[in-house]
Amino acid sequence: MNLNDLIFQINNKDSFLCIGLDTDIDKIPKFLLKEDDPIFSFNKSIIDKTNSYCVSYKLNTAFYESLGVQGWISMKKTIDYINYNFPEIFTIADAKRGDIGNTSKMYAKTFFENMSFDSVTINPYMGSDSVKPFLEFNNKISILLGLTSNIGASDIQLKKTDKDYIFLEMIRSSLVWGNKNNMMYVVGATKPHHIKQIRELIPNHFLLIPGVGAQGGDLNEVCKYALNDNVGILVNSSRSIIYASDDELFSDNAAKEAFKLQKQMKIILSREK
Amino acid sequence: MNLNDLIFQINNKDSFLCIGLDTDIDKIPKFLLKEDDPIFSFNKSIIDKTNSYCVSYKLNTAFYESLGVQGWISMKKTIDYINYNFPEIFTIADAKRGDIGNTSKMYAKTFFENMSFDSVTINPYMGSDSVKPFLEFNNKISILLGLTSNIGASDIQLKKTDKDYIFLEMIRSSLVWGNKNNMMYVVGATKPHHIKQIRELIPNHFLLIPGVGAQGGDLNEVCKYALNDNVGILVNSSRSIIYASDDELFSDNAAKEAFKLQKQMKIILSREK
Repeated sequence: MNLNDLIFQINNKDSFLCIGLDTDIDKIPKFLLKEDDPIFSFNKSIIDKTNSYCVSYKLNTAFYESLGVQGWISMKKTIDYINYNFPEIFTIADAKRGDIGNTSKMYAKTFFENMSFDSVTINPYMGSDSVKPFLEFNNKISILLGLTSNIGASDIQLKKTDKDYIFLEMIRSSLVWGNKNNMMYVVGATKPHHIKQIRELIPNHFLLIPGVGAQGGDLNEVCKYALNDNVGILVNSSRSIIYASDDELFSDNAAKEAFKLQKQMKIILSREK
Repeated sequence: MNLNDLIFQINNKDSFLCIGLDTDIDKIPKFLLKEDDPIFSFNKSIIDKTNSYCVSYKLNTAFYESLGVQGWISMKKTIDYINYNFPEIFTIADAKRGDIGNTSKMYAKTFFENMSFDSVTINPYMGSDSVKPFLEFNNKISILLGLTSNIGASDIQLKKTDKDYIFLEMIRSSLVWGNKNNMMYVVGATKPHHIKQIRELIPNHFLLIPGVGAQGGDLNEVCKYALNDNVGILVNSSRSIIYASDDELFSDNAAKEAFKLQKQMKIILSREK
């Protein structure tokens, strides 16, 4: 799946919603724990009920890894289920990997080949040769951390050189590693002022924007600065959708939350047209 | 296992060698491919033959993940094998993880609880709250990227603020997140000048130094700047040991390479005493 397909889906569904499957065994409804694979059962139900409101699912790898081998089985079953039943959905491995070249190549193989995700998030702290191995895969998207939504962003990303903020210097450097067709950037929703700066630097790249919902980011504020002529954004919401309730109706309630966001997105998109 | 135990082992074995199990299905001897779990069979044989020359094994998670679920099974079997048979060995998950707090907590659970590693490498680009969840585990060590050995280090780590290099600013910030008993730093062997700067800033912390061997770092040069009163370093070598040959004698030849390094280390340590 490439970004033109994603843009088509966004316009088709009037949605730029990405749902984060940060599936936590301690937070899913208790009655699911009797299933053979509670994590997959939860995900399957959420996906079945929400797929018409979103264009993307993002699997946060940490939540699966924390269950070890069984977690990787659940992750693999989830991505296979999405790819088989909803091939129009753009899939993201939120893995924040990055290492020296020969190791990054292995991570790229993990998520692009073995797990068949469309994209993976990358921590660019180790620089050019840690990112480039991901960019060598055709029809796959590398999503670099642009600026994260957490407090700790100030420790490195928001430091300044004599030229600019580190996060802007990083984005500027990365523009020669790949292009708008194979690179996106993660930009936290909690910092609208910096979203504006990033959009000025990269008017044509897609942005993946987490932090709306549980982390406190505002959808309209984000869109004001981040939308471009091709929409150009995916807005992720995880906890406020998937944990809308922890009873038998959990996936119906998740769908209601997803539909609420999709309706807001439809209004925003209609304004832009 | 804590760092005092590690220091005891270093003095006991006259070695500060860490062997990197970057086990690649395409590089192991072909005759192993007929085994049920070729990756584990390779690791077991390497571990059995080399454990007396080293004090630590470092598993590069990317190489296991690239094989998906089966790779995680091989990684789990390897760590369990080391912990059961060689509990005196300090184990490192070279995973370079890091994310917002609730996600980092999951990564910490993955490597400290589910996989039972003694330590994990952490990418500190997302700052304080991405690192602290790892530091909450007792008797576990968080190994932060101090300065990496690759070319891309210049893209962010070697940029300068008006105060200092980013990598030194990061280390300075991190000193209030943890202490010398629960934090170490990865410092590439290819940049001796910067090792000196790092050692001046953190005289008492342990350093994990990759890049000796295939990546070109020099052991004596590294030790000149990095050793402290408690030795204070682990030097990692991966490919030049584990791929010493690809025939029936692969683990014997790996042991010879490990022994060569251990002998050099013994001489260096005896000079220090």
